[in-house]
Amino acid sequence: MDCKNIIIDMERSFITKDEIRNNKEKTLESYELLYNKTGEGNNFLGWVNLPDSYDKEEHKEIKETAHYIRKNSNVLIVIGIGGSYLGAKAAIEALKGNFYNELTKDFPQIYFAGNNISGSYLKRLLRVIEDKDICLNVISKSGTTTEPAIAFRILREYIERKYGKKEASKRIFVTTDKQNGALKKLSEKKGYKTFIIPDNVGGRFSIFTPVGLLPMAAAGIDIDAVMNGLRDAYKEYSKKDYEENICCQYASARDILYRKNKGIEILVNYEPSLSFISEWWKQLYGESEGKDGKGIFPASVNFSTDLHSMGQYIQDGRRHLFETVLVLQENEEDLVIPEDKYDLDKLNYLAGRKLNYVNSKALEGTVSAHVSGNVPNILINIPRMNEYYFAKLLYFFMLSCGISGYMLGVNPFNQPGVETYKKNMFSLLGKPSI
Amino acid sequence: MDCKNIIIDMERSFITKDEIRNNKEKTLESYELLYNKTGEGNNFLGWVNLPDSYDKEEHKEIKETAHYIRKNSNVLIVIGIGGSYLGAKAAIEALKGNFYNELTKDFPQIYFAGNNISGSYLKRLLRVIEDKDICLNVISKSGTTTEPAIAFRILREYIERKYGKKEASKRIFVTTDKQNGALKKLSEKKGYKTFIIPDNVGGRFSIFTPVGLLPMAAAGIDIDAVMNGLRDAYKEYSKKDYEENICCQYASARDILYRKNKGIEILVNYEPSLSFISEWWKQLYGESEGKDGKGIFPASVNFSTDLHSMGQYIQDGRRHLFETVLVLQENEEDLVIPEDKYDLDKLNYLAGRKLNYVNSKALEGTVSAHVSGNVPNILINIPRMNEYYFAKLLYFFMLSCGISGYMLGVNPFNQPGVETYKKNMFSLLGKPSI
Repeated sequence: MDCKNIIIDMERSFITKDEIRNNKEKTLESYELLYNKTGEGNNFLGWVNLPDSYDKEEHKEIKETAHYIRKNSNVLIVIGIGGSYLGAKAAIEALKGNFYNELTKDFPQIYFAGNNISGSYLKRLLRVIEDKDICLNVISKSGTTTEPAIAFRILREYIERKYGKKEASKRIFVTTDKQNGALKKLSEKKGYKTFIIPDNVGGRFSIFTPVGLLPMAAAGIDIDAVMNGLRDAYKEYSKKDYEENICCQYASARDILYRKNKGIEILVNYEPSLSFISEWWKQLYGESEGKDGKGIFPASVNFSTDLHSMGQYIQDGRRHLFETVLVLQENEEDLVIPEDKYDLDKLNYLAGRKLNYVNSKALEGTVSAHVSGNVPNILINIPRMNEYYFAKLLYFFMLSCGISGYMLGVNPFNQPGVETYKKNMFSLLGKPSI
Repeated sequence: MDCKNIIIDMERSFITKDEIRNNKEKTLESYELLYNKTGEGNNFLGWVNLPDSYDKEEHKEIKETAHYIRKNSNVLIVIGIGGSYLGAKAAIEALKGNFYNELTKDFPQIYFAGNNISGSYLKRLLRVIEDKDICLNVISKSGTTTEPAIAFRILREYIERKYGKKEASKRIFVTTDKQNGALKKLSEKKGYKTFIIPDNVGGRFSIFTPVGLLPMAAAGIDIDAVMNGLRDAYKEYSKKDYEENICCQYASARDILYRKNKGIEILVNYEPSLSFISEWWKQLYGESEGKDGKGIFPASVNFSTDLHSMGQYIQDGRRHLFETVLVLQENEEDLVIPEDKYDLDKLNYLAGRKLNYVNSKALEGTVSAHVSGNVPNILINIPRMNEYYFAKLLYFFMLSCGISGYMLGVNPFNQPGVETYKKNMFSLLGKPSI
């Protein structure tokens, strides 16, 4: 199939026309809650019209800072957890490939820290950067989230020892709250350059704020093209017209399948470079919908890799799941399968064919295999992976998620359950209450 | 908790003593099917007594070959899919850390290929190895599995062009069937050194054959210590005594929870280096149990990282899941949290503490949080991660899986569902039937 835009294909979703028709009103009601900002969590909808409202001056400063980082370092360490690293990591892998750090010449390598509390991870990372020139981008609204705060203490000490305090302060870039919080105060004290996480944008919706854009720009991603995709997505997906709006269609399909007891959604890709889009997506849907004892469990697989691990289960296991498949229509980077005179491996029938052609047939064959195994399949066709479609795809998922959450009857924009482990941990660590 | 062996802790599994008692007979029956080799799939039980039966001469040759690879290359490319790469990758990350390729000095970097059909992945990998000295280890029983066969054609052509055919044949190591198949025949023609995948060991149970051991040894992992762990695991876990045998206990718990409608098991770790043990585990359980419309869906998370993505769902979402937590009791690599005079991030109460201490409190706090959210938690305590305990842990999972599969009433040692997508793909690609 050829496509010039992101297209959703429900032909193999096991959803009937009647089911869609009967669910249309509910879908559009939820859509209106979102668009009219009349639903729960409506003070966290700043991401919806970001393409209109973003600070153009700050956008320019992001590009200038990325240029500065590039000139002054060969490693950028991005310190953040959850929404403060998943988006940037997804973007860099999807747009620059799995081997970005190995292959980059003109742009700094990017490592992530502060997204775990492992002593060995951070210690080894310090060894990796030993002889490199580094910059830091620390991303946290409050500045007190345990994981990034610990990593930043250690890396800040490291960088101050390495360069001296004055020079270090020019190598630290902070993405945080406009006026409050520990990081904001420290930045004022130390003279760090800061970028703003808007008040009304939650972590999992923050990729197109400086949270995601600064690391992306540092890796050589064209963030103007990103914003173009976002602008077009905003325009297209704000149509209150079920037939025209793929966000409504996806949200409705999820709602129908969930009520048919499909409790697991597996996001499928066929490119290793897309695996972190799935990780980003899992946070988006898991945190938005997994509450009040409800919600679809978000999982992911990388095919054809995982056809040799999770494939058996999906084909023949318990029927409590459905798949959403990312279908890239085009992929420029490719290789040709060579002829072999012995042909012992019986591959000569593919000689002269390109790998991505074979990959596309693996996709087709798998979709029909899993459908024959009674797994509903939703296909999301994407013309190709570039800045423009990356932004469009992610905005599509974000908007669909808002609609879908309202359909489920939850507030898609809070995350009360994340606090429980923190409370227990602080108590075990003897954190003083203030 | 301190422990000198792998210990399973069911205190928070929501399983009553009555439930355990009532399930004991069924558990021991399944255990006997496995040990007496009287159950379905009993011709694939070669892995059970591998510690006794493995070829000592070949084991020596693996170490010699690893030495040869180390002397003659700085990159080893391991070509394989499913069980032919997951075990080795899990071992290298768990035992050498996430930054093995960045930090290794005395041993070759290891890259994996043939585990996908992405043209851009392989093309970029060729760029990564451009100026390196390389060896290949291709792993496939038949030699005709599409993914590794394609990658091997391309990489073989590359290496023959680079070194000439004669030298190339000394840099290619083949792990395959004893006497049959395309790779065996090609090896005879070309004079490649070969290692044997035993007839009676399926892919997902093959990590402790040359499939896993050669890449491990090449990465500097002590495979004698691995075999020691395996030998002790074999000895300990072959006791037909429910109270003494943690494999029986884990298998029984899974069976009970599945019947209580916990359709998802999440394997949890707190070290980024353990994430591929989870991927290996997902193949093991998904392929062994996901059949006949049955089976627990295996998923995984890396904490505390994913507490900021999947944490909300696990805490508060639909209650169709349980967690199995890998608890490392000790971790040598560590860092200390420094004091900060401003203490704006409010972390001074942790100054002087080590990261792994904080990490262990995150674990404790999370377990009790999730348990309070009605998520059954099974804890697997592991003294530390080294060759010995790595082998023991994986053998524990393998043996438990056999018992668990029989309890579910399936043949845990086949994978009929994996063929469906292949059949469709071959038909779409126009593969000649022979």
